[in-house]
Amino acid sequence: MQKIIKDLVQKNNSKILMIVLDGVGGLPVNEKTELEAANKPNLDNLAAASACGLHMPVGYGITPGSGPGHLGLFGYDPLEWQIGRGVLEALGLGVELRKTDIAIRVNYATIENGIIKDRRAGRPATEESRKITRRLQEKIRKIDNVEIIFEPGMEHRFAVVLRFPEPLPKGADYIKDTDPQKEGKAPIAVIPGTSQAEIVAEITRKLINEILNVIKNEPKANYVLFRGFSQVPDIPAFADVYGLNPLCIAVYPMYRGLARLIGMEAPSLSGDIKEEIEFLKDNYNNHDFFFMHIKKVDSYGEDGNFKAKADKISEFDTFMPRIFELNPDVLIITGDHSTPALMRSHSWHPVPVILNSPYVLGQTCKAFTERECLKGELGIFPTMNLMPLALAN
Amino acid sequence: MQKIIKDLVQKNNSKILMIVLDGVGGLPVNEKTELEAANKPNLDNLAAASACGLHMPVGYGITPGSGPGHLGLFGYDPLEWQIGRGVLEALGLGVELRKTDIAIRVNYATIENGIIKDRRAGRPATEESRKITRRLQEKIRKIDNVEIIFEPGMEHRFAVVLRFPEPLPKGADYIKDTDPQKEGKAPIAVIPGTSQAEIVAEITRKLINEILNVIKNEPKANYVLFRGFSQVPDIPAFADVYGLNPLCIAVYPMYRGLARLIGMEAPSLSGDIKEEIEFLKDNYNNHDFFFMHIKKVDSYGEDGNFKAKADKISEFDTFMPRIFELNPDVLIITGDHSTPALMRSHSWHPVPVILNSPYVLGQTCKAFTERECLKGELGIFPTMNLMPLALAN
Repeated sequence: MQKIIKDLVQKNNSKILMIVLDGVGGLPVNEKTELEAANKPNLDNLAAASACGLHMPVGYGITPGSGPGHLGLFGYDPLEWQIGRGVLEALGLGVELRKTDIAIRVNYATIENGIIKDRRAGRPATEESRKITRRLQEKIRKIDNVEIIFEPGMEHRFAVVLRFPEPLPKGADYIKDTDPQKEGKAPIAVIPGTSQAEIVAEITRKLINEILNVIKNEPKANYVLFRGFSQVPDIPAFADVYGLNPLCIAVYPMYRGLARLIGMEAPSLSGDIKEEIEFLKDNYNNHDFFFMHIKKVDSYGEDGNFKAKADKISEFDTFMPRIFELNPDVLIITGDHSTPALMRSHSWHPVPVILNSPYVLGQTCKAFTERECLKGELGIFPTMNLMPLALAN
Repeated sequence: MQKIIKDLVQKNNSKILMIVLDGVGGLPVNEKTELEAANKPNLDNLAAASACGLHMPVGYGITPGSGPGHLGLFGYDPLEWQIGRGVLEALGLGVELRKTDIAIRVNYATIENGIIKDRRAGRPATEESRKITRRLQEKIRKIDNVEIIFEPGMEHRFAVVLRFPEPLPKGADYIKDTDPQKEGKAPIAVIPGTSQAEIVAEITRKLINEILNVIKNEPKANYVLFRGFSQVPDIPAFADVYGLNPLCIAVYPMYRGLARLIGMEAPSLSGDIKEEIEFLKDNYNNHDFFFMHIKKVDSYGEDGNFKAKADKISEFDTFMPRIFELNPDVLIITGDHSTPALMRSHSWHPVPVILNSPYVLGQTCKAFTERECLKGELGIFPTMNLMPLALAN
């Protein structure tokens, strides 16, 4: 698919702005969804004047994580390009991954006589576990010719990155979790599932020994369980595929990390919607594709806070006039997946989308809601088709 | 696909009830389709409160048989898992097939001087041909180590099953029909199309010789034409793929047979809607997935009897309160394909579907009809995506 698109792309001076309200799709509570309950005259008017529809991140009934959700938005088939758990964890903690990296999510655990007593080491305070992780980084920097990066996380969690001197072959991350999943069992040995994974397994074994040397006298965090071994996928760069010069505007590290995986420029940024829009304005002349990510909509959905999610959408709407001032050639407003407050989690439901450009039918729906977008000219379509649509417009 | 779903499935205690009104989709006669003409307040209210849409069994413009229609409903790609004509015929006649079987549909024919004079042996009365078939079973039980099963059918038709002692390799059923398709020609020899099929061809040649020894003096049914050689497909079991404990509730043997092909429990049952619902209630605590099949809707469609088809739908609606009493977590009402009375046959038209669960938008359509379901939140989608949706809900 990427190949076909690349061959078809014609360079011009248009600007495309894709705004992702994370987890924006919802379900009715007292008959209205979050989008229906929000006060958003600007978005509703925009929807009426635009091509609308619903996009399906992975497939019917399949609930996507943030990785597949965003890859789809960027036009990559999320089933073809899978992003491992270790990579997602490391990106979420802000590690700048390279193509030579293997990333792993790690738990501190408590072991007694070779048996895992607590898979989470009694859930240590984050500050406490950070101290231990920092100590690990001080003592362990390299194993053979592999650089070791420790990145502290919340409570019992942290990430480890094995930075090899050169890219590893496919399958090098095929190593079973050492986590036995249940207390009262011994940890699982580091077993390579392919011959390509043998070198990674060997480094991991040495690493675990060195880690245990450092932490063996900790009262609770005296063991580590390695999970989600994963390689940084060798995804074709966004700029190469689409002939665009993209900029990622996101305050959460994971989304910047996902953007960087496909070679997007993704500078660090803090603040909220206001700061993101200022950043967009400041950089508007230097790029032609902008991915702007608004996280809080999803966070409130996962908290089950229907009103806060609807309010965040209403708040975003008040910024729309500033967006309109930029007058992008193609303006997309959507989400990466649905997060109904009713379910307190991501869901499989397709995600409403507005695509505004001079080349749309329009006047098929009255508002930016799930039910109105159903009537829209884009229908229900796979998320990965959104980028070709954006480029065409 | 089965692999992906299997990896994603999480076990819980939810109950899924899928009711298949065989051939429910229709076309307008005097401006209304069968569903639009039926009186069905319960189904219409359910549709309004549910996720609705239309599913496409195989593809645009492709008219499915019952096999592909049902495989799709069970979440299997009907293009990947094809069910041969012989297998379908044997299932329809109530044979309980095993994975080691080759099934064949057979015609009695009339031969004279080596030339087929009548491909249907003058369409004998069913009772007459049954007598001959029973005699064949009495005389022929085994050829080499292969058990031979004869199952009488209607008029000139019957089924033969070659039950091998162990499963055959793929391609073992690749044998051309011996039916020359036209009178005045010689029957076609039994020719294996692959080396895997040689053993089947050899048994078949011996079998035909033995059959001819028994029937050679029949005045008309003095020859047999073998068609639709087919292996029982090695389909992954429904219970394994979805982690569900399924029950098939169907009075027609073919549907029970299809269900058994994927390892569903499918006890014999007679009666009509009332008996099926009683059976459902009696077994409701012992399973978590129920496939309930209502045949008559399709039969009246194939007869071209518009009114009787609409009336059967109305009758089914009167039973809906009993279904609602069970309060399944996910309730699906749909068909396996369309059978417009106007066409007196199956058709390629997508099939309306209601999916009710707590996690739907709802209020997108007013009734359970083809035209209203078009407005629904599920859109038009491949039938095989219905099971992932059901599981997600």
